[in-house]
Amino acid sequence: MSETLTLAAIRAAHDRIRGSIIRTPVLASEALDAASGARFFFKCENLQAAGAFKARGACNAVFSLSDGEAARGVVTHSSGNHAAALARAAQLRGIPARIVMPSNAPRSKIRNVGSFGGWIIFCEPGLAAREAGCARIAAETGAIIIPPFDDERVIAGQGTATVELLEDQPDLDLILCPVGGGGLLSGTAIAAKGMKPGIRVVGVEPASADDAAQSLKAGRVITIPNPATIADGLRTNSISELTFSLIRANVDGIVTVSEESILEAMRRLWEALHLVIEPSAAVPYAAMLERKVDLAGKKVGLILTGGNTDLDTLPWMKP
Amino acid sequence: MSETLTLAAIRAAHDRIRGSIIRTPVLASEALDAASGARFFFKCENLQAAGAFKARGACNAVFSLSDGEAARGVVTHSSGNHAAALARAAQLRGIPARIVMPSNAPRSKIRNVGSFGGWIIFCEPGLAAREAGCARIAAETGAIIIPPFDDERVIAGQGTATVELLEDQPDLDLILCPVGGGGLLSGTAIAAKGMKPGIRVVGVEPASADDAAQSLKAGRVITIPNPATIADGLRTNSISELTFSLIRANVDGIVTVSEESILEAMRRLWEALHLVIEPSAAVPYAAMLERKVDLAGKKVGLILTGGNTDLDTLPWMKP
Repeated sequence: MSETLTLAAIRAAHDRIRGSIIRTPVLASEALDAASGARFFFKCENLQAAGAFKARGACNAVFSLSDGEAARGVVTHSSGNHAAALARAAQLRGIPARIVMPSNAPRSKIRNVGSFGGWIIFCEPGLAAREAGCARIAAETGAIIIPPFDDERVIAGQGTATVELLEDQPDLDLILCPVGGGGLLSGTAIAAKGMKPGIRVVGVEPASADDAAQSLKAGRVITIPNPATIADGLRTNSISELTFSLIRANVDGIVTVSEESILEAMRRLWEALHLVIEPSAAVPYAAMLERKVDLAGKKVGLILTGGNTDLDTLPWMKP
Repeated sequence: MSETLTLAAIRAAHDRIRGSIIRTPVLASEALDAASGARFFFKCENLQAAGAFKARGACNAVFSLSDGEAARGVVTHSSGNHAAALARAAQLRGIPARIVMPSNAPRSKIRNVGSFGGWIIFCEPGLAAREAGCARIAAETGAIIIPPFDDERVIAGQGTATVELLEDQPDLDLILCPVGGGGLLSGTAIAAKGMKPGIRVVGVEPASADDAAQSLKAGRVITIPNPATIADGLRTNSISELTFSLIRANVDGIVTVSEESILEAMRRLWEALHLVIEPSAAVPYAAMLERKVDLAGKKVGLILTGGNTDLDTLPWMKP
């Protein structure tokens, strides 16, 4: 358990990054409320800078570095939203960001990192090659590794979304949050319980990538070799020891949802909210569709984690 | 010229409808600004109740009725956003809304009106049959006709979007606004010039439905028989005498854009803003793409008018 990762650390992160992130709106939908018997409040991190909540953790980590550390630059391995967020945070601080990406990464992701001035180093596909590439760059250049979730500064940054959500909607009963590596869920739970001790925080995970749910059940970190889910932001092999301990201490439970429900939730949210969200962001609402959590009469916060998805191949249009 | 349609009337409308509409966010995009050399502020009426700015005008018109008038119910002919907005406004006041729709209207539009309790009366396709149907219903039932734009109460309501936009961003140099029947453009210009006399307001219209631009040039209302544009919200045959006079008195100009630019603008806005917007809402940004207005170094407000579009057939996916 972390002694330092408290609401105070998350509030300090918020003060540190406030000028460099968007205070995203919290939206509601009459139609979705009428269909469910609950009241939903969507924290729209798809409208965040670089299109995902990851801007928060990346900014907090990069802005927390001493000038001496910062001068060495930062490095990470990711082909997703953390990569673009880290490139952006480094650009704001005026330091180089090196991003190790698999050679088969989608061109849109490569473009996204490049648009924020990130230096891309290609490696073979596969987690082992990516980790090795990242470690090699760090050794060669002295760059500081900023991991996507296994880092207290990153987790504190992700928790700032919930500070804003509860400032805007103080009377929430429950927050639903997707689980990938567990960074967002950890930060969400610490912020929420710190601000409002009685609130419940529930993680939602694709059933086909349910390493966090399995880990909670087993009482230790469980790894899944090849998680296969449409929710590309949640295809992590496992949570970390840090996020495992934070989730176990602060989260009320994790439920799982099917791929069909994720797709249905994504489609419904696009239609009702008029927002472009990525599949991962639809996962909490899928728990509502599957009635996995008792929401009747409740005020429910959902974190719409990101909006970066390929607009040429929307999943419900696939043959 | 209207003597009564002033900023004061728009502010009164705002007070009247405030509790029944969403104060929509104003969003910006680092990527779009970097690509243009201007700073854009998007007023997100796609996030408005029922998915379009039309909720404003419909609420103001319905809430302005005396109790005696209201008891007779309201009627309009429309298959678009005004129909759903009027059904919603009537539902909020607890009175019936009758909507005359062509028998070939898309099912999504029918469902949308029905979801707010609107009573749908089908007629033959074509403007003449719709107007006749609407007049007949009004005569038979005593229902008050609430037209989509040719009405001071409706125009005053539409202007409230600009009151909010300028409250949030007081230092705009210019506002770009789509033109269909001219109700939104009229309300926008009256609100903007009233709040900030030096601001410029420019209408943007599809070149293939340029009745407003033609009318300004000719000095009288010009009618186009069958305007063919992807921007389905702007397929009006003509502006009205009322909106013509208001536009002529208050608007700095109208520019036109191609269908290709509208499509390109829609795609770019979806990608950069992570918002679902309908084709009509992309029309102002298309003017930027075509360099029809000098925007260099300017702070530009754009009204994203609505988000109701068929998610099964996105226009850039058409064969």
